[in-house]
Amino acid sequence: MICSIEWLGDRVRFLDQTELPDHETFVETADINVLAEAIVKLKIRGAPLIGIAATYGVLLGLLKSKNSSSEIFLRRFNDAVTLLEKTRPTAKNLFWALERMRKVLRLNSTKNANELFDILESEAKAIHDEDRMMCESMGFYGAQLIEDGATILTHCNTGALATGGIGTALGVIKTAHHSGKKISVYVDETRPLLQGARLTMWELQQENIPATLITDNTAAWTIKKKNVGMIIVGADRVVANGDAANKIGTYNLSILAKEHGIPFYVVIPTSTIDLSLSNGQEIPIEERSKDEVVSFTGKRITPASINVFSPAFDVTPNEYITAIVTDKGIHRAPYDRSLKEAVLQ
Amino acid sequence: MICSIEWLGDRVRFLDQTELPDHETFVETADINVLAEAIVKLKIRGAPLIGIAATYGVLLGLLKSKNSSSEIFLRRFNDAVTLLEKTRPTAKNLFWALERMRKVLRLNSTKNANELFDILESEAKAIHDEDRMMCESMGFYGAQLIEDGATILTHCNTGALATGGIGTALGVIKTAHHSGKKISVYVDETRPLLQGARLTMWELQQENIPATLITDNTAAWTIKKKNVGMIIVGADRVVANGDAANKIGTYNLSILAKEHGIPFYVVIPTSTIDLSLSNGQEIPIEERSKDEVVSFTGKRITPASINVFSPAFDVTPNEYITAIVTDKGIHRAPYDRSLKEAVLQ
Repeated sequence: MICSIEWLGDRVRFLDQTELPDHETFVETADINVLAEAIVKLKIRGAPLIGIAATYGVLLGLLKSKNSSSEIFLRRFNDAVTLLEKTRPTAKNLFWALERMRKVLRLNSTKNANELFDILESEAKAIHDEDRMMCESMGFYGAQLIEDGATILTHCNTGALATGGIGTALGVIKTAHHSGKKISVYVDETRPLLQGARLTMWELQQENIPATLITDNTAAWTIKKKNVGMIIVGADRVVANGDAANKIGTYNLSILAKEHGIPFYVVIPTSTIDLSLSNGQEIPIEERSKDEVVSFTGKRITPASINVFSPAFDVTPNEYITAIVTDKGIHRAPYDRSLKEAVLQ
Repeated sequence: MICSIEWLGDRVRFLDQTELPDHETFVETADINVLAEAIVKLKIRGAPLIGIAATYGVLLGLLKSKNSSSEIFLRRFNDAVTLLEKTRPTAKNLFWALERMRKVLRLNSTKNANELFDILESEAKAIHDEDRMMCESMGFYGAQLIEDGATILTHCNTGALATGGIGTALGVIKTAHHSGKKISVYVDETRPLLQGARLTMWELQQENIPATLITDNTAAWTIKKKNVGMIIVGADRVVANGDAANKIGTYNLSILAKEHGIPFYVVIPTSTIDLSLSNGQEIPIEERSKDEVVSFTGKRITPASINVFSPAFDVTPNEYITAIVTDKGIHRAPYDRSLKEAVLQ
């Protein structure tokens, strides 16, 4: 399996996803700034993977403070968290993972810096391991929704490249495939950064799962003409009422699912759920640089000096979501109840 | 105004639209094969412009036969028409324009080759002139649908680059703007060949019309968040019941319009109407090479050897279309009656 990120004891090794599919370039760094920049630049991406990366980022920020006073260690910890929290605003997993690190520190406030580092390192590894297991669990539950012979549409990348395991939505697809179900997958290319074309097609090819690439604007026609039976996507933040922020274009797909009478599933680890927000309007939506739209593989494709609206995410209202699959099971409306149960379970 | 194509008496001059917006490259040719290839390669594109180009293509194919026998002249004419009809299958205007050339030839069957060439040349120029006037007329009618302050979403390119005049849908937008209405336009980039990003943004910039580029998958979120009040598109073929084949992604937009309760308008010259087909399922839909999706500005962006589904067009069912604007007026359902009236008027 692809190992998108790894903690090597004194440094992090990660796959630079902006180089895929042409090059499998691994970067090793002991510098928290390099890691933070990698998250900003989407070299490391996918809500669960961002969470994992952030915990390793904290460790990087503390490498030189193992023998410091507790006071300095705590200050460095806060500096690291502050830096990492600013990388990307939408994915809940980033804040969730950093909060877990903060909590374990609080619970061990009497320990010295060296001990605290070990505890944080264990917690980071645990978060990574748990994510891998949550992927397995989502795969198990989600695959039950996929019938033999199903044609599935997915968006962006939600696989091993986006998580610590087999993936969320793509993990479900892989699990169904490996259980022997004959499925085929249509993949939105996912402009502007083409995570579908570059990353999901690459993962599906590695798994020998029949896949066909389409441009994003071909989705509606594909659903109608190719007998697509379901849409499965991940999410970066799902709030208390079930509204789901995910890669731009997801809201579009949810409307297409409704119009064509097919189910629309969101697959997330419980670490993506944010019960502190009551509805999707409260989710901070990152706007990306217009360079990502006006340039392509380094070449400008539009007239100079134009306006661009480039949100990285949109919010799908809960009423468009047939079910939300988590590591705890398959949850249906009313989501304010079912998601709360999943988190507290 | 942009002159996308021009007949120079013994050759054609056209703007190579694949070079825009970087370069305004004009090509002059007396070779019908160069012109036909330019249509296939989308150097010349847009349903009405393809029709105009085809008539000039016929003239190119006959340049050396002006002094031939009528028999040879007719054979060359048929060769030219056969070649041009094979360039692209979906746009009605191509077949409509060639049929007009065929008809004028039939009506003058007793003339000699030299006379026939002159008659065909006049017909070609008339078709070009009429298209320009039809654009003005569509602009006049369509602008009545646009309120002062409107925010409009459009797709692909339907302007001067696609027609012999100011355009179809984009002509309506220009007319509303020049009449003093304060409008703003969101433009889908229109993958894979980015006619929106490259061509429509360029035309709107030249006209000083406020415009913002979005990726295709941002359309739904833009409609919801930016108070988009209407969607206006062109079409390549509209059949008797009002079903409309247009650039891939149009069907998607029509569903978004319905879901958000905003009008969806199709703007076409009557030369785009095909009363010989009863519904959209009968329209031949061109599939393009997967190279257009997997490569971008010459660079491959996906893994090698993948499957791609790349239809150039989709069909929007009539029930999603609020009104069809033609050079004859604004037509509403039932379209089988209103479109017939428009054509016969």
